[in-house]
Amino acid sequence: MISEGGPAELALLDRIRRRATRAESRPLRMGIGDDCAILRLKPREELAVTTDLSIAGRHFHLDWHPPEVVGHRTLARGLSDIAAMGARPTAAFLSLGLPRKLSFPRERQGAWIDRFLDGFLALADQYQTPLVGGDLAESPLAMADIVLLGSVPRGKALLRSGARPGDVVCVTGALGGSAAGLNLLRKRQGRIVSAARESEDSSDLLKPHLWPQPRIAQGIWLRRKQAATAAIDLSDGLSTDLEHLCAESVVSAEIDAQALPIHAGATMDQALHGGEDYELLFTTPPNAPTPRSIAGVPVTRIGRIVKRRPGQSAIVLVDASGRHALKRGGWEHFS
Amino acid sequence: MISEGGPAELALLDRIRRRATRAESRPLRMGIGDDCAILRLKPREELAVTTDLSIAGRHFHLDWHPPEVVGHRTLARGLSDIAAMGARPTAAFLSLGLPRKLSFPRERQGAWIDRFLDGFLALADQYQTPLVGGDLAESPLAMADIVLLGSVPRGKALLRSGARPGDVVCVTGALGGSAAGLNLLRKRQGRIVSAARESEDSSDLLKPHLWPQPRIAQGIWLRRKQAATAAIDLSDGLSTDLEHLCAESVVSAEIDAQALPIHAGATMDQALHGGEDYELLFTTPPNAPTPRSIAGVPVTRIGRIVKRRPGQSAIVLVDASGRHALKRGGWEHFS
Repeated sequence: MISEGGPAELALLDRIRRRATRAESRPLRMGIGDDCAILRLKPREELAVTTDLSIAGRHFHLDWHPPEVVGHRTLARGLSDIAAMGARPTAAFLSLGLPRKLSFPRERQGAWIDRFLDGFLALADQYQTPLVGGDLAESPLAMADIVLLGSVPRGKALLRSGARPGDVVCVTGALGGSAAGLNLLRKRQGRIVSAARESEDSSDLLKPHLWPQPRIAQGIWLRRKQAATAAIDLSDGLSTDLEHLCAESVVSAEIDAQALPIHAGATMDQALHGGEDYELLFTTPPNAPTPRSIAGVPVTRIGRIVKRRPGQSAIVLVDASGRHALKRGGWEHFS
Repeated sequence: MISEGGPAELALLDRIRRRATRAESRPLRMGIGDDCAILRLKPREELAVTTDLSIAGRHFHLDWHPPEVVGHRTLARGLSDIAAMGARPTAAFLSLGLPRKLSFPRERQGAWIDRFLDGFLALADQYQTPLVGGDLAESPLAMADIVLLGSVPRGKALLRSGARPGDVVCVTGALGGSAAGLNLLRKRQGRIVSAARESEDSSDLLKPHLWPQPRIAQGIWLRRKQAATAAIDLSDGLSTDLEHLCAESVVSAEIDAQALPIHAGATMDQALHGGEDYELLFTTPPNAPTPRSIAGVPVTRIGRIVKRRPGQSAIVLVDASGRHALKRGGWEHFS
């Protein structure tokens, strides 16, 4: 499963293996060290699987993002997809392609890959998600592909396709914070985040971008309470992800501009189109009470699902000046 | 699960989705189109998971390998890991990072990505392995990360760790053919494989390298008949992979040079150290009969497992001139 080269590569793999296998979890029968990892599901459970590819220069920036942040964000992307299904994460697989100097620096201490794993494994520990396999290759371009496996009771996964006219559109947390933080980072050319310590101390505006929190507990709550008719995570921005949900549910949506929980320091545009907030967007039945918060994270009603009308925009933004067709923002990460 | 950009990217994703979802399989409940794919296992089955990262310039060469070959080889790498566990493949996930010109050529017909999928999906069809998810990103460097899921009855997976002193070491097929083919390709600078048609017609020496066949049926046979005490696939070369098996089983091995099934046109060195043959290396109990072939592929006894002695080489090669410590070949793909 993990391919290798010479003795230095083998030593590195052993180091990763030792670090990764500290965290064990019940569904796991065998970790890194054979051709495949073997996992066991409980009876009456289904498996949720997602993969997310992160590429230097597009999804992260080696000059701006401390390695811990890249590790955290890599795993957070995958966990957020698991959260959107109402699933519980059970195991992670990581494929890393790295320039040689990031794996084997001249000074042994502080290798980029070790600090990447610091960030990755800290988040993995937080969500009891063991790293049980993956691949490692030398690559002129740094990249990380994350595979997340989750479990969910049969037939209970939160889908994008269940929203019906009359449903209420809700969102967890605040929107636009990640785009605003990225904007700040871009202006500063990353100077503020040259070390992990600085990142942790950095302003609240950088936190949503650097340390996004996947909404695992919120997804599980929604699934257990059967409170959501549909759900999606906000990885590409509200305008894009709501359009996906509408497309899969064959409905349209109206969003109240005034109701949007815009992150302090972010703009309306960033809240509508900025990606990587990793909040949950979900719909609830018309007469169901909306919780004010789930597991400590605020929930806001931001609009409603309406019947799809041919030739009309899937999403309408309603503000003081009237009704506007809301087009996809075309969030493109760094590109 | 699949991230996207503008309308062109969405159209491309739709095209992939339509092509991928033609092949359906029983364990699959939902494919591309939600945050995760949902899969169901039969009762009393375990899940086998593997990931393999392929990077341009290292695992494949855009100038030498037709896109169909890259697609075939990408999937074959993952399927071979599934075969080595005696598992049955159930679903594939593919993360692709591609330069823009490979996804969106000036002329719509014959896009690299479509021809990559031709090769990928032809092999997927052959092994009833639906492509159910993945990710797609623009990348200056072409890369493909394959995730394979397989199912295997509980506790029955073929492991690397079960070989015992006295066991017989066996191998399927012939060895060294892939390295010999790669060598030929390197000499010709890839001229012979500028189109898929030429590849298919090309000499027998190129076939093992261009179109490796994962030994799925052979792995399942060994597991069902409980014929193997340990197994591994030959991805990095006999010397390296046998060392892995010996390490996990805490044993040593003696290999008879004369017994090695060397591929026509390959050298002893290529048979010992050449990678990417994707044959199965397995051990059988001392008194068990060795089948002459499994599902049409020859099986050869090449040596025996012996007790590990501290300070001695894990593998000894026995030939007419005596006994030699066999060191790992350090197969490094293209690098």
